[in-house]
Amino acid sequence: MKTTALDFRNVNALWCSVIAETLVRCGVTRAVISPGSRSTPLTMALVRHEEIEVVPVLDERSAAFFALGLARREDRPVVLVCTSGTAGANYFPAVIEAEESGAPLLVFTADRPPEMRDCSSGQTIDQQKFYGAHVNFYHELAVPEANAAMLRYARQMVAHAVGRTLTPQRGPVHLNAPFRDPLPPLPDGTEQRAAGLVTEDFFAHLSPSRTPVFAAPELPAWPANGVVIGGSRQGPGGAAYARAVGRIGRKLGWPVLADALSPLRNRAAEVGPMVTHYDALLRAQSVAAQLRPEAVLVLEALPTSKVLREWLRSLDGVPLWFASERVVNRDAVHGAARSLEVSAETLAAALPERAEAAESDYAGRWYEANARVATAIAAEVDREETLFEGKIARVLQQTLPEGTPLFVANSMPVRDLEYFWAATDARIETFTSRGASGIDGTLSTALGIAHGAERPAVLLTGDLAFLHDTNGLLLAAKLRGSLTVVLVNNGGGGIFGHLPVAQFDPPFEEYFATPQRVDFARLVGAYGIVHAKVRDWAELRQALEKLPASGVRVLEVRTDRKADAARRKALFVAAEAAAKGRSGPA
Amino acid sequence: MKTTALDFRNVNALWCSVIAETLVRCGVTRAVISPGSRSTPLTMALVRHEEIEVVPVLDERSAAFFALGLARREDRPVVLVCTSGTAGANYFPAVIEAEESGAPLLVFTADRPPEMRDCSSGQTIDQQKFYGAHVNFYHELAVPEANAAMLRYARQMVAHAVGRTLTPQRGPVHLNAPFRDPLPPLPDGTEQRAAGLVTEDFFAHLSPSRTPVFAAPELPAWPANGVVIGGSRQGPGGAAYARAVGRIGRKLGWPVLADALSPLRNRAAEVGPMVTHYDALLRAQSVAAQLRPEAVLVLEALPTSKVLREWLRSLDGVPLWFASERVVNRDAVHGAARSLEVSAETLAAALPERAEAAESDYAGRWYEANARVATAIAAEVDREETLFEGKIARVLQQTLPEGTPLFVANSMPVRDLEYFWAATDARIETFTSRGASGIDGTLSTALGIAHGAERPAVLLTGDLAFLHDTNGLLLAAKLRGSLTVVLVNNGGGGIFGHLPVAQFDPPFEEYFATPQRVDFARLVGAYGIVHAKVRDWAELRQALEKLPASGVRVLEVRTDRKADAARRKALFVAAEAAAKGRSGPA
Repeated sequence: MKTTALDFRNVNALWCSVIAETLVRCGVTRAVISPGSRSTPLTMALVRHEEIEVVPVLDERSAAFFALGLARREDRPVVLVCTSGTAGANYFPAVIEAEESGAPLLVFTADRPPEMRDCSSGQTIDQQKFYGAHVNFYHELAVPEANAAMLRYARQMVAHAVGRTLTPQRGPVHLNAPFRDPLPPLPDGTEQRAAGLVTEDFFAHLSPSRTPVFAAPELPAWPANGVVIGGSRQGPGGAAYARAVGRIGRKLGWPVLADALSPLRNRAAEVGPMVTHYDALLRAQSVAAQLRPEAVLVLEALPTSKVLREWLRSLDGVPLWFASERVVNRDAVHGAARSLEVSAETLAAALPERAEAAESDYAGRWYEANARVATAIAAEVDREETLFEGKIARVLQQTLPEGTPLFVANSMPVRDLEYFWAATDARIETFTSRGASGIDGTLSTALGIAHGAERPAVLLTGDLAFLHDTNGLLLAAKLRGSLTVVLVNNGGGGIFGHLPVAQFDPPFEEYFATPQRVDFARLVGAYGIVHAKVRDWAELRQALEKLPASGVRVLEVRTDRKADAARRKALFVAAEAAAKGRSGPA
Repeated sequence: MKTTALDFRNVNALWCSVIAETLVRCGVTRAVISPGSRSTPLTMALVRHEEIEVVPVLDERSAAFFALGLARREDRPVVLVCTSGTAGANYFPAVIEAEESGAPLLVFTADRPPEMRDCSSGQTIDQQKFYGAHVNFYHELAVPEANAAMLRYARQMVAHAVGRTLTPQRGPVHLNAPFRDPLPPLPDGTEQRAAGLVTEDFFAHLSPSRTPVFAAPELPAWPANGVVIGGSRQGPGGAAYARAVGRIGRKLGWPVLADALSPLRNRAAEVGPMVTHYDALLRAQSVAAQLRPEAVLVLEALPTSKVLREWLRSLDGVPLWFASERVVNRDAVHGAARSLEVSAETLAAALPERAEAAESDYAGRWYEANARVATAIAAEVDREETLFEGKIARVLQQTLPEGTPLFVANSMPVRDLEYFWAATDARIETFTSRGASGIDGTLSTALGIAHGAERPAVLLTGDLAFLHDTNGLLLAAKLRGSLTVVLVNNGGGGIFGHLPVAQFDPPFEEYFATPQRVDFARLVGAYGIVHAKVRDWAELRQALEKLPASGVRVLEVRTDRKADAARRKALFVAAEAAAKGRSGPA
């Protein structure tokens, strides 16, 4: 790799050009910056470096979610830069999501130097340990100096910081970076004093950071009748993960329960048979009881399904194994849980081959019940002619072009995927923000996933999640790529209609559902974004079958929030009956 | 005060109705809530209480700035409520501004109970000490219990928390509030078990919290020729502050330099003579040197002016006194500084009367120079026919109805006020966010200042600050009152054109000025907000002379960012010449 010419114009320029070159050597290719004065040296150095794409984003909250989307799709560290003051506080929601779900973000907050702090100097606040325990690593950089020892320190610390976005597990890192005036590269004699201080060799030992792979631990002797729960994993490597989960299921002879947010449901050929309707199926108490396993192995995270979690909670004493290289406490059900710090891929390779090739009776019962439920749900949903919200997920599943990156907003969309997304081979790449499961940053994250992607991307979102992040619309002008937003406008928060608080109205509508009054066509039109109102299923299918090559487009689907909550409940009743079909009376 | 009936339906309802009643007894009248499930008990109790106005706001960032505006105008604690997860992280920018500038916010973040944390339970993150050192007080409440001892604890802790938003100085307080299911008031036997546990007497000892007043300290013997700098103070009491500053000036015989963001410039009769053009005036080095004082007394904070601050820095060894009840390090210039923990009002009363009634020669020189500069600037600005950005501040000053609450956005608007706002008697109430001086939350803060105000309010903002907070537009539907937004659309960040980085283009335009492409008429129209494009000064005056009684209206003034930067510089040259007029050659 050739060194981008270093910038000797002044001490800040030299310092930041060393940082930029170090970032590139360590694998950074993208930076998202927000305008500001104190961050001038960092911004100029990043823009100047030919190997870094720099995207300017006005609103730091939006910028951070955009970076999160980029980092998630590529599984590469993305740099964020903002000025001093509250700018960096706007990063906080995305930093937390990055920590909870494991996305490599490297946050630089510019700061005033110590002598300008705590003395009512403008735009100066306490930025030390700004994000508390929500980062993998924090460090405050020294005020720049143009001598070899300090430049070596800056290089080494930045290289370490990039590493810590990936090691030992993915997450955000925060570097607070003070600068003295002058901020732009006005000459200060560095050119004369420091020429030759840094050369090509200075960066020669650096190489891209990576996340370590954990070796297989000693494996337990698992019983005959267990279940594998294939949880969500995002980003590159979905195919390998899907194959590994399928192989684990076959080697153990256990049925595979496939999270809708995992690559599994979109790679049926690679996984083999899978249970997609665990949520609907386990609502039938008698079926749930009959399917009691001898052990449970969860790969990555537990699915969203509250029904599944309640069922696991009911399996008191049944061994519960959580396997993941991401070391977090995964057991929200507080069972007889043990952890295996290992990836599905490593685990699949380490498991012994199984003698019997045939499916076990136990697995067969799962798959049969699932098939019955799948048929019942498909029949009900497919004949639905009104714009039922739940069916949108199914139409996406049936229609989206192969390999489409799909970002699914929190609240109802993730649940509708869980209920209605069948197993396919379309290799849709599903992304979500299930770390903290907020509705914030939805559009910006989706734009990050779309930016520079090989294929046009799609966002499935409700109206509240969309409106929470309207500033994502400012990013549309900067998008390299294509994003189609399927905006389910149900006039408020649909998920609340599924909670017991819905029976208390007032205050339910005004303070929980919180319908907003916005004309979405005008709103997105203000940003030069195309809007279309979808009137029936044919229009939706047509709009999704071929996605535009570039630009942002919003497809608004107006639905009936209350009627759709009732429809979902009716579907669960039908599914429950189907689940019981051959399993005997309730 | 009558106790709003307590809610015994279940333990969460009882707990939160005790909290709501305690809040009211301690002086809280307003709450801003964002929709969510975990916060259900708090939301329901606040909505249920007749003495609390509850405003629902979708985006927590916007909600917090709205609450900040309310708290600032009324100088009363305002309650914020949000659900668990990243919701509360969106409060962070406003919490920091509240801490830096002293606004009483009481933040409740709902949380899951301990047993649901750190185990991948949904929407659960670490919310303990969420805002680090940026709050006056933090406490995690216990999980609700329906017994007398625990209810007494909840009452006392909430009363203390309200107090800490005001004592010893104003600022934000954070209570993390865990709740177990069921969240809505589904019966759990509390009705039977806890009836009579809490009665009217339970709250009898509570009373509204207040900020303590500091007694006058021993005062120094000040020299004859000093200057008083009357800094910004916001909210109720502007008249008393203005009178006090004027009285201090007269008692000391010192000239009063009046910050444009203080009540002083709008209460000329109460203050007496004042220096309004210190910024332009001190640009003339020879004048600045001749006006060297023997001491400086700063009331509240230093004005924004960089020129003033540089001048103070040049006064090496001149005693510098900072008087305020807000105990923060005020001395950004690192002079021979001493602090007086006392308000201007107390100081004015404590100062001895001065023997000589006449203005000192020294004060006279300040006022004469100021008059020359004021005349020169007025002449130049008044004859400007093009829509020069700087003149907008002057037109507002000349046109706004008496007593108008005016929120001034950061970056150029606060500076244009400093340059061009003359001394008047219009009693305009100026508000700003100069704690952290961010551009975030501008529209929402202005709406908070407008909400429930006695008179129609006005916001002066640039396009970037406006766009950073478009979600404030969602609040328009909830506004009780009137807000006229004077939107100076100069196609980017005007302040950067006054910084040395402007000479480096590229990357200046794309990465610093960051012009955005938005059709403001369509944007605000999407929210049902009236938009008018202002084509000349007559239209602007006409639109401002009589403000609408209700609703939000946006007046867009398109200006030329680069030409206006040049115009300001030309004006400073003219002002400098005028300043030197009778002070001899430069």
